[in-house]
Amino acid sequence: MSNDVYKHSGVDIDAANNAKNLISKQARTTFSNKVIGDIGGFGSLYDASGYNDPVIVSHIDNVGTKLRIASALNNYSTVGEDLVNHCANDILTCGALPQFFLDYIGLGHMDANIASSLMDGMVRACKESNCSLIGGETAELPGLYTPNNIDLVGFVVGLVERAELINGASINAGDVVVGIASSGLHTNGYSLVRKIFNLDQDSRILSKYYDQLGSELGEVLLTPHRSYVQLLSPVLSIIKGMAHITGGGLLENPPRILPDNLGIDFDLSSWTIPEIFKLVQVQGNIETSEMFRVFNMGVGMIVVLEQSNLNHFLRVIPEAWVIGEVIENRNTQRIKFQ
Amino acid sequence: MSNDVYKHSGVDIDAANNAKNLISKQARTTFSNKVIGDIGGFGSLYDASGYNDPVIVSHIDNVGTKLRIASALNNYSTVGEDLVNHCANDILTCGALPQFFLDYIGLGHMDANIASSLMDGMVRACKESNCSLIGGETAELPGLYTPNNIDLVGFVVGLVERAELINGASINAGDVVVGIASSGLHTNGYSLVRKIFNLDQDSRILSKYYDQLGSELGEVLLTPHRSYVQLLSPVLSIIKGMAHITGGGLLENPPRILPDNLGIDFDLSSWTIPEIFKLVQVQGNIETSEMFRVFNMGVGMIVVLEQSNLNHFLRVIPEAWVIGEVIENRNTQRIKFQ
Repeated sequence: MSNDVYKHSGVDIDAANNAKNLISKQARTTFSNKVIGDIGGFGSLYDASGYNDPVIVSHIDNVGTKLRIASALNNYSTVGEDLVNHCANDILTCGALPQFFLDYIGLGHMDANIASSLMDGMVRACKESNCSLIGGETAELPGLYTPNNIDLVGFVVGLVERAELINGASINAGDVVVGIASSGLHTNGYSLVRKIFNLDQDSRILSKYYDQLGSELGEVLLTPHRSYVQLLSPVLSIIKGMAHITGGGLLENPPRILPDNLGIDFDLSSWTIPEIFKLVQVQGNIETSEMFRVFNMGVGMIVVLEQSNLNHFLRVIPEAWVIGEVIENRNTQRIKFQ
Repeated sequence: MSNDVYKHSGVDIDAANNAKNLISKQARTTFSNKVIGDIGGFGSLYDASGYNDPVIVSHIDNVGTKLRIASALNNYSTVGEDLVNHCANDILTCGALPQFFLDYIGLGHMDANIASSLMDGMVRACKESNCSLIGGETAELPGLYTPNNIDLVGFVVGLVERAELINGASINAGDVVVGIASSGLHTNGYSLVRKIFNLDQDSRILSKYYDQLGSELGEVLLTPHRSYVQLLSPVLSIIKGMAHITGGGLLENPPRILPDNLGIDFDLSSWTIPEIFKLVQVQGNIETSEMFRVFNMGVGMIVVLEQSNLNHFLRVIPEAWVIGEVIENRNTQRIKFQ
């Protein structure tokens, strides 16, 4: 039977099927023994047995306009990693280890190379976090996306025993707050970065080498969002609360896990803000307070601990540092920087 | 703190927060007592206890370019329903009842009215299928989407006891195949429809009244994808296999659940193809075989049963009809129409 009719409507079923086969092959390399059946059924099946009182923790997200940097540089090899790690880190804050992941790629015209590059990144990240990539959808939607643009959406599911949920409820004044470095901008603030560097009009500046970065701008902007799953899984049992520093930065994310009467005093002198944020701030002439609301400023995750568990935590995770303290604070502005 | 900087980059955080508050309020009306906590955490929590040997069945999908019809008519009130029902029907084919749903809305510029309309449809459909809408992401991505276009992605999770999984493995030659009507095009074939009616150049034909449809074209094209969850949940235990007739139609979907040595002979005289498909075929001068590969042709779901269970099935679901029979067939083309 001919595909011609549908092809002329802007959808190429053969190209889509070829891309799907390639994608399925890549995805199977991530399968744990909990995956039931194969890719391509109407539903993706995952064995959830073996838990006493299981809670499913899920999150859906995208990588924002970091995709437009990838598009400008024609380098889609790492945004898949951004997507998986962003999602996995989010559910990790609840104490859940990621079990499986599904992706959605929307694009105006199917390009098997782009789809395969995106998959490379997702597969790499899924393997790192022991997460099975068990399904997805690649949709060719002519006319909906601007040329050379795609959207990428990820969905992660984790499982955790109800008694081991981390939700911040036990946080008290006097608890210590530990920071763990980000690997760059992660997946937030890219619309602002594009505006500041005028990237939509002229993206050549992405290839400019900056001494202070020790690298080209585009390379730094595409640095993958790191995963905290392997790093933090050995110490989940001593963590009282954890906030992933995404959009909203250190100002808006920590209050999401704090009891209403508590705030955090952050010690600004405890870490050095990476050069990329300084460059963005100067280039855009942005107030520091705004920078802390849009970007992670070098802090990818904060963890709240009892003081008595601090030494153990720092022994297991030497790269972490004390970044602040939980304090009694009933004001609207519960985050302070000192 | 001012939002101005970010607003000038094309992202309006205040508008986004307002939309999010509205969306959260709508979503909470769908919560079952299995939902733990609230919208807005880093992860969405769902109680999965009470199963003996649970399997998680999940599916991610979108509604394709049906969105462009919604956009042309500026009517987003039903595409949310399409999305939820499409996803819920897919996991239902595995025997799983939908438990929770998460959505993703991607758009170039936040429009609270559109977001709220989309939510209306999703909430309505979630309630109908007893599915809790526990999270989502609305991403404002200036420049990535063409003006007035959005993308909408849905993710559904269901649970089923492993012993009650429906996977088609027990299907035998001689089993009866029952059809259940679609409510229209559902969510497939819209790129072709847009091409045939030249909708991207001039969408005024959507308001044209067709006698044979008894309605305006646009109205018929936007008819929501129906849900089979409530209808079929009482008879899941006697179903051997079930195929949701989505992209690929009656030709490509049934083989996804059939053992390799089996095919289906469909009885074309057993149902009347709805007028909308006839109109599309004539308008586009499309071969019948192609029509059956792109569209559902009036059949939304097929169900495979032991002959001995047929009468019981038809008593519970009087609208269903015998549409074909499972036959021994080792050819490449395993679906025949007679």
